[in-house]
This record gives sequence, C-alpha cells and structure tokens, in this order.
Amino acid sequence: MMHYPRFAARFAVLVSELRGKQVTVIGHQRPDADCIGSQVALCRVLRAHGVEAVCMNPDKVPRRIKFLVGDTPFYGRDELSPEGRVAIFTDCADHGRAGEKVRTMYSAPIACVDHHISNQGFARFDFVDTASAAAAEVLTGLFLDADLPIDRVTAQALYTGMMTDTGQFRFPSTSERVFRLSAELVARGADPALAGAELYERESLGKLKLLQHFIGSLRLECGGRVCLGVLPQGIFASSGATEEDTEGLVDYARSIDGVEIGVLIEERPGTVKASLRGKLSVYRMDTIAAQFNGGGHANAAGLNWPGTLPDFYPALLAAITQRLNEVDAALA
Amino acid sequence: MMHYPRFAARFAVLVSELRGKQVTVIGHQRPDADCIGSQVALCRVLRAHGVEAVCMNPDKVPRRIKFLVGDTPFYGRDELSPEGRVAIFTDCADHGRAGEKVRTMYSAPIACVDHHISNQGFARFDFVDTASAAAAEVLTGLFLDADLPIDRVTAQALYTGMMTDTGQFRFPSTSERVFRLSAELVARGADPALAGAELYERESLGKLKLLQHFIGSLRLECGGRVCLGVLPQGIFASSGATEEDTEGLVDYARSIDGVEIGVLIEERPGTVKASLRGKLSVYRMDTIAAQFNGGGHANAAGLNWPGTLPDFYPALLAAITQRLNEVDAALA
Repeated sequence: MMHYPRFAARFAVLVSELRGKQVTVIGHQRPDADCIGSQVALCRVLRAHGVEAVCMNPDKVPRRIKFLVGDTPFYGRDELSPEGRVAIFTDCADHGRAGEKVRTMYSAPIACVDHHISNQGFARFDFVDTASAAAAEVLTGLFLDADLPIDRVTAQALYTGMMTDTGQFRFPSTSERVFRLSAELVARGADPALAGAELYERESLGKLKLLQHFIGSLRLECGGRVCLGVLPQGIFASSGATEEDTEGLVDYARSIDGVEIGVLIEERPGTVKASLRGKLSVYRMDTIAAQFNGGGHANAAGLNWPGTLPDFYPALLAAITQRLNEVDAALA
Repeated sequence: MMHYPRFAARFAVLVSELRGKQVTVIGHQRPDADCIGSQVALCRVLRAHGVEAVCMNPDKVPRRIKFLVGDTPFYGRDELSPEGRVAIFTDCADHGRAGEKVRTMYSAPIACVDHHISNQGFARFDFVDTASAAAAEVLTGLFLDADLPIDRVTAQALYTGMMTDTGQFRFPSTSERVFRLSAELVARGADPALAGAELYERESLGKLKLLQHFIGSLRLECGGRVCLGVLPQGIFASSGATEEDTEGLVDYARSIDGVEIGVLIEERPGTVKASLRGKLSVYRMDTIAAQFNGGGHANAAGLNWPGTLPDFYPALLAAITQRLNEVDAALA
C-alpha cells in the first residue's frame, strides 16, 4: 500500500537528481523533535543511498532531543559553507523559518518536506502534505513508498517526530496512517519507551518550577472558554529553567474542562511571544496568530509581537473573543 | 496476518459455545479504561454475533471513562442475577479481582481475557498474553483474527484501553502490534483525539492547583536520586481538588532527570498515605512499601501508615536509602 501516492514519482526524481550532489538538510529555528528527527532521518537515508548529505540548523539541538542525532553529521549555521551545496528544508512552513541568513545562504532550495497548513511551497520539489501530523510522517511514507532502507537511528528519529507532533498520539492529526507508519518504524528498531523516557522523564527541576509558576498565573477568560498564563521576564533566571523548557506548558492551559483555547504568553525585552492551542480546529489558531505576525496550524500556532504585555494581552484577548463570536455565529 | 495465532482456534470454539447462552462480561474493582473498554468491546462484539451479553462491574464506571460505554448494557453487581448466566472476566489477574461476592456469584467462569503477568488462568477458556500491553490489545487481535465485525463504539473502547494501559504509547509494552492494532481500530472509527480529550483535557482548575502545590513542595534527596513531594492536610479544600485528583501527580516527582524514585506523600488525620514510583524495577517499590504496611508492583506501590509526617518522612527516606545502597552494592 502506498502512503503518499501523489509524491512517489516526484520523490524518485529528486533522489535521482541528488546523486553526486552535496546536500544540506535544514530545519527551522528553535527546533523541536519533529524538526531534528526529520533532518536526521532524511540525511541518513540520503547518505545510505550514496548522497553526501549533512544536517544544519541555525540553533543548537535541544538537550532533550540530542539522543536522536547519533552519529549523523550535524552543523551549526556558521560551521558549514553553503558553497556548492543544495538545500532541502524539513518541517519549515516557509523559506525564512531557518532565519534570514540561512534563506540568503540557500536562496534556491531544491526540496522541502513539510506538513504546515500555511506552507505554499518554496522549493523546486515540494512535498507538503497538510493532512499529515508531522514532517516525519511525510518522510516515513516517502521512504517506505520508495523502498529506501530505514536504519534504527532513522526509525527512532522519525518515530519521535511523529510522537511529539501528535502530542503523544492525541491531536486530531493522529490518523490511521500515523499508527501504520509507527508500527513500521517499531519493526525497524524504533523504541517507544526510549522516546518516552528521554522526552518526559528527564525534566529539570527548573522546568517543573516554570510549570508551577505558569499554573499559578492561569486566568480563565471568556466565560471559562479561554485560559491564559504568563511567564514574566526574569522567570528563567529565578527558576533555573531555559527557554526550551516552555515546551508543553501551554497544554496545561488547554487541558482544563470547558476551555476551548489555551494560551502561553512569554514576556521578553521589547517583545511578547505567545503560543496558542485550540481544542477544535474550527477556532483556527493560525489566523489568530497571523494578526500578530505569527502563524502555524489550526490547533497550534505561535507568534512574536513587538510590544509590551499590557498592550498585547487585551489585544490578543479581543482577537480571540472576536473569533469565538464568529465561530459561535457560524455554528448557530 | 494473525495477531494471536495460538488463541485463534480456541476463541472460535468459545464463540460457537456461547451461541444461545446469556453472558455476563465482568471487569475488576476500581475499573480503569482498559477494564471498561474491554468489557464494552467484548459485550458488543458478542451481541453483534447474536449472543445475549451484558457488562457488569462491582464498582461504578468512573466519570472520565463513561464516554466509552455508549448504549452498551452495563449493570452494577447487585442489579443483575447470575442465575442462568455464564461469566467472562476481562482484565482480571485472578478470579477474585472483581471481589469475593462476584467470585461466588460466578464460581466457574467460562472464559478470561487478560494480560497481567500474575494471571495463572482461572477459566475454562483462558486468553492470557502477558506480552500484551492491555486486555484490549488481546481482544482486538482476537476479533480481527476471527474476522468479527468491530463497530465504532467498540473500536473506541478498545483503542482507549490500549492508549491508557501503554501510558499513551510510552511504556515498554508499546509494541509494533499495539500500533498495528491501533491503526485497524482507527480505520474502524476509533478517534484518538476524542480519547485524548476525554481523558486528558477535562481537568479541573483544582487539579492544576494541586499540581502547582505539589511541584512547589518537591525536594531532592539522596544526591538527586529521590524526589519527594507532600500534600498537606487541608490542601483539597483550599485548592478545590478532590482526592481522585492526586492521580498522576507522583509521576512529576519521578520525571526529573537523574531521579530514580519519585514519592508523593499525603498527610491525613492520624495517618500518612504515600505513592512510590521507580524508573527501574530493580528498586522494588513493593518491598519498600511493605515496610510500611503497603504493597504493589516493582515500579509502582502505595501505603497507608498510622503516624505523622515528621515521623514518617525520615523513616521512609531511611528505607529508600537502604534500598538504593543494597542495589548499588549488588550492581557494583
């Protein structure tokens, strides 16, 4: 059974074009497990196929997901010259998601593998499937459809990308295909318990302190349909947490019975960062985020906004309220 | 492909023997989602096959998993006469797991479907597979192998049993088969997002406040290998939480990097209650708990101790320290 029949022929052409080329597999800033997992997996499969591929990311691989990399060559942005190299972007909704400098360094990407709803395509070969839960899902399907060998490290990287981008198999994107592909990856050596232990049983005390603070800051708005929490400036220093420790916090805001939309707001010098999570895709977190220079998926979006918390909070709340009203009216 | 080839012929004999019989599908006391899900699924599949089956449980179906039942006939222990009925036990490690009264009411079970390692078999037809993650996994395989139709409610019940008993697909029992069967169930109408929403996105604000307090109380001991947190008397009233809301809290203590054993201590009038969770079975939480009138499993145990927190805390810590030293010596 083919997993991505509409991509198969094009992917075969890409793989054959890559022969003899030097490939840089690029992921987005502030990489998550789906980003790093996809980069690692694509790089390894290409190398096993005789293509000289390496991974590059503008940011460091976060501590928690380093276990995915293994012996895969992984470079920082300024450690690798783009000279003579072609670029494939994974898990990037657009060409700028790895930063402006990387966009300039690799101005004409040969390929892009992604699942973000806002991805319009920006490479010669685009493999964008917005019904997929993860870039790792698209890649797993492409590899299996093309009968390319998947080693144990690759299987673990792809599995972990799918596991995290489905929120441990519970977001609406968790499809029959996600499970079928996960089974194939476990058959090839992926270890679900290892992924769980590395990602969820190696927390820092600082991260828990951050969670403690975030829960304490939660406020219900819009009659309990919206729950917002704030991390103030200085919280990282005082709690001993790092910025990557914010991952997953917003899910606590959304987890409350009756809440439709959960929000995490981080106060930063001169800017505000926010993560939005909806329980139903109809609320379109991506379009709310877009009003503040952000973007993402229907159920999960993010933004960076130049301004202060006292300005941002009511503006965001107004945008959310308007959206709730629109949806209520449409469903009435 | 057969999922449980060694069971297939026996299951076919059972199903054919059940024709014309009245069947009670029984689960264990304090039922969880795998128990209720298995009961519901087996009952529905038998009914669709023309067998007059109903579910019975000695305890109420917990609020969070009621969504699994649908229109399946479900009775309390004293609402259904055992007269003329044959019993099938699901998710029960032994004949007494539904209580002594139920054991007497149904003294000769016709069948048992289970996955607990301690299950020695106690029915005429035993379908016990200790390599399976869930009773729901065994049932899913049996149904698919026998080509019995699985409706949407049945698929949801089976899927949710597997999801919860694998800790959202991250316990070591999460196998290739778990994913293959999950894919089959999603294809038959199971909705992973619904299961996730009902089980993990209907929290009370009180439960989060309890979590906030628990995190604030965490202390690392034994060089960071043990993490203990305390819920003082009165915390339920002040946070608006219930005693059921303590479920899962201890996992936060264990989740810290380097921590081998996590502990939750609840202070109660005249007594102390504690939950112990180990990352590795070698630490034997059950034997530590046994020193305080408790018991359980190698990775998860609990106790109730008559005394006060100032007495209990150092005594427990001494017992844990001794156990860590014993294990260290044995592994040296």
